Amino acid sequence: MENQSYEVKMNGSGIHEKNALIGVNGKGLNGNGNHHKAVKSIVCLAKQKSCRQRWNIRPSEMSINTLNPIRAIVDGMKLTPNPEKPMIALSIGDPTVFGNLPTDDKVLQAMKDAIDSHKYNGYAPSVGYQKSREVVANFYSCPEAPLEAEDVLLTSGCSQAIDLAITVLCNPGDNILVPCPGFSLYKTLAVSLGIQVKLYNLLPEKSWEIDLQHMESLIDDRTTCLIVNNPSNPCGSVYSKEHLQNILSVASKHCVPILADEIYGDMVFPGCTYQSTASLSSDVPILACGGLAKRWLVPGWRLGWILIHDKNQIFGKEIRQGLVKLSQRILGACTIVQGAIESILNDTPQEFYHRTIRFLESNSEICFSELSTVPGLTPVMPSGAMYLMVGIEMEHFPEFQNDVQFTERLVTEQSVFCLPATAFEYPNYFRIVVTVPEEMMVEACTRIREFCQCHYRTCSRDSNELDQ
Amino acid sequence: MENQSYEVKMNGSGIHEKNALIGVNGKGLNGNGNHHKAVKSIVCLAKQKSCRQRWNIRPSEMSINTLNPIRAIVDGMKLTPNPEKPMIALSIGDPTVFGNLPTDDKVLQAMKDAIDSHKYNGYAPSVGYQKSREVVANFYSCPEAPLEAEDVLLTSGCSQAIDLAITVLCNPGDNILVPCPGFSLYKTLAVSLGIQVKLYNLLPEKSWEIDLQHMESLIDDRTTCLIVNNPSNPCGSVYSKEHLQNILSVASKHCVPILADEIYGDMVFPGCTYQSTASLSSDVPILACGGLAKRWLVPGWRLGWILIHDKNQIFGKEIRQGLVKLSQRILGACTIVQGAIESILNDTPQEFYHRTIRFLESNSEICFSELSTVPGLTPVMPSGAMYLMVGIEMEHFPEFQNDVQFTERLVTEQSVFCLPATAFEYPNYFRIVVTVPEEMMVEACTRIREFCQCHYRTCSRDSNELDQ
Ligand SMILES: Cc1ncc(COP(=O)(O)O)c(C=O)c1O
Ligand SMILES: Cc1ncc(COP(=O)(O)O)c(C=O)c1O
Repeated sequence: MENQSYEVKMNGSGIHEKNALIGVNGKGLNGNGNHHKAVKSIVCLAKQKSCRQRWNIRPSEMSINTLNPIRAIVDGMKLTPNPEKPMIALSIGDPTVFGNLPTDDKVLQAMKDAIDSHKYNGYAPSVGYQKSREVVANFYSCPEAPLEAEDVLLTSGCSQAIDLAITVLCNPGDNILVPCPGFSLYKTLAVSLGIQVKLYNLLPEKSWEIDLQHMESLIDDRTTCLIVNNPSNPCGSVYSKEHLQNILSVASKHCVPILADEIYGDMVFPGCTYQSTASLSSDVPILACGGLAKRWLVPGWRLGWILIHDKNQIFGKEIRQGLVKLSQRILGACTIVQGAIESILNDTPQEFYHRTIRFLESNSEICFSELSTVPGLTPVMPSGAMYLMVGIEMEHFPEFQNDVQFTERLVTEQSVFCLPATAFEYPNYFRIVVTVPEEMMVEACTRIREFCQCHYRTCSRDSNELDQ
Repeated sequence: MENQSYEVKMNGSGIHEKNALIGVNGKGLNGNGNHHKAVKSIVCLAKQKSCRQRWNIRPSEMSINTLNPIRAIVDGMKLTPNPEKPMIALSIGDPTVFGNLPTDDKVLQAMKDAIDSHKYNGYAPSVGYQKSREVVANFYSCPEAPLEAEDVLLTSGCSQAIDLAITVLCNPGDNILVPCPGFSLYKTLAVSLGIQVKLYNLLPEKSWEIDLQHMESLIDDRTTCLIVNNPSNPCGSVYSKEHLQNILSVASKHCVPILADEIYGDMVFPGCTYQSTASLSSDVPILACGGLAKRWLVPGWRLGWILIHDKNQIFGKEIRQGLVKLSQRILGACTIVQGAIESILNDTPQEFYHRTIRFLESNSEICFSELSTVPGLTPVMPSGAMYLMVGIEMEHFPEFQNDVQFTERLVTEQSVFCLPATAFEYPNYFRIVVTVPEEMMVEACTRIREFCQCHYRTCSRDSNELDQ
């Protein structure tokens, strides 16, 4: 593919050469009469150096290597819904699509106030307004992991936060440890930068805790970053204090810094406690990435942040400076949102957060209890975030080779679309987004049941590894 | 610097190893008694592989190579104003800082309407909403260079537009042609990506037209992009139709695509006409970068765009796909601004644009005519944008070695700060931003005059190369 050359019409090239000579001549303000001649001789000179005689524009390696597994898989699927049933998409990680989870009015008012103030139209510093960084620092600061404005960089969404964090920590040829199943952006970014990705396993039977042995076995002397996503997309898992401490121990032992993707931080169901990784770290330096997208239900606004936790000055000034320098490439978040952040963080009523969580929990429970009794499926109950993973006992569905075929046919027959977990490098599962309206969730589960009943086959050797 | 290693306190590392073994043990939900032992053996295995026994986190090459010349120069200057005179900063390319150039009320209203609609809180496609792309396409489409929604990508500011354009066109080792003097971001982005930068000269005596001979002489077979910035930062120049045609001829002859940075497009003074590069191109494919920042006076909002002009399908599908893929890394612009763009482009009264331009022209004229009569200075009258370049006849200011020392002392004595053009790779000039309130401009010119009178020395061999 890279050697394939364009067949481009060469018409006009002779004409342009003529134009070049005519056009340059005589238009100069200095009226230099020798201009024409000079250009001509340079033209010849240049001809020797530049051998390009025809158009041949190739996209860069980096753009070719920027791979989006979700797109790759979804674009390859035949997604023709059953015309007799309205489509229900349980695939989109955007809590706003169905209108049932609006952000709070205070959040919208904060934006309008920021606009009316006329104070937030100019350039902010590339790392964000000092005041806005301070507000985020105060919001997330805790005695175990204190934060000041200087520890915060505001970014264009959590995605840019992750991009900057990976980019500052890793050189081409280094490797990063990434959860499997996990959010695909980590790999997309790393691979495009020539950074190797090593996938560590999560254990569905242990509520998606990290297989620490496996993770540790992957570390080598070019491992420059361990990505921990808690609460997790796509699992909806929330790690216990103990599990986080164990993760930190491995990182500490091998001196690997952590990128903590905590975009779903605090989005945990009642009875479960969320702890930030940094609050448990005594030495491991952490870049915690977060943003407004999920908890405040405004993913389009593109406000994210990096919180630099570095008690022992292991990152030191250089990583901080590296982040600042990288932030100057394209500058960060929209200033109106930056101006609104103080009120968004401080004035949003607690009830708003609670309502969101109650809804997510209730929908998760409906989905979990419905699918638990469907033969051939093994849903895993989440403790937070907005997702629920469902195992497919493939041996009971001999018609389908894998999760992609399974979910594809679920669309064709039942007009229900769930993302096959192959998109998260985790075959034989699919992910359900639990932000859809309750009636939709119920209806979708009924249809999934019908679909499974229709295709389920008992097999001779009954395997129950998944639900032991 | 790269080999310098951290001296980090190793306290806690032994303790952590112990923690790792204790912590992992017995907390597993599966109650696997062999866990402890298994972890221990893996720990030993890993020890052999990973030789890192102490923290040594280095910022990546890319972050080290992300250089900001303006910061490098300004941070190195002693900028202590004269306490008896209030500081006047003519250095900041942000038209909003003094409050004298507010955006239009319609623009603000469009934002509030977008918020109130509740329609723009979710994720947009990574290239922007279809409708918003269509609106930008219609706004910039012309018969000579028609545009459709598919030809537009919305980005996080013009900076990201430039970043994506360079990144899709160039591999490490390729080179790009960049104006000198020119906006420093081109080099910052390219160098950090391992792309070589070749500076082509602009000619102050020809109103900053490109030295086409010089530019052409720089092209070789690894030249993958020619950046043309029109109207120009820092020159305020606007190219004639003929000059643009000549530039296009060189590009066409050598088959080099153009990145047209047209963020100041249409910001030209009466009597002068702005033409987009694309409208004159018959074959050269062009990525035109623009945004809301300057013309609509809202640089903080971070809405930019790439317009893909490719009549002859020379970029073809692959460059388009490459741009789309790159846009998926961090997604683009804030959705509220995207939602507002239709009204911003279609409902902003013409009088708003005219008022801005009248002001910029009037301030430029004040500044130019004031400084024209200052001995030792050679201002160049701009035709657009928001800047004016002033040549310093250094031989008449023997106290100062260069533009940096000159402008530094201008702060110390007169509390006027102009950016030394060394920041644009163009020594012995300084740049004045003409967006400051008129009284400030007048006062600043008076002080510059006083400063020059104070330091001007006639020299034996009077050189007038600059104003011939
Ligand atoms: C785990 C995880 N991290 C990061 C992001 C990106 O967040 P943002 O939209 O703020 O870029 C997402 C979005 O779905 C996510 O699921
Ligand atoms: C020539 C030029 N291009 C691009 C930009 C960046 O524009 P934005 O603020 O939209 O990223 C600037 C900003 O000053 C500029 O002067």
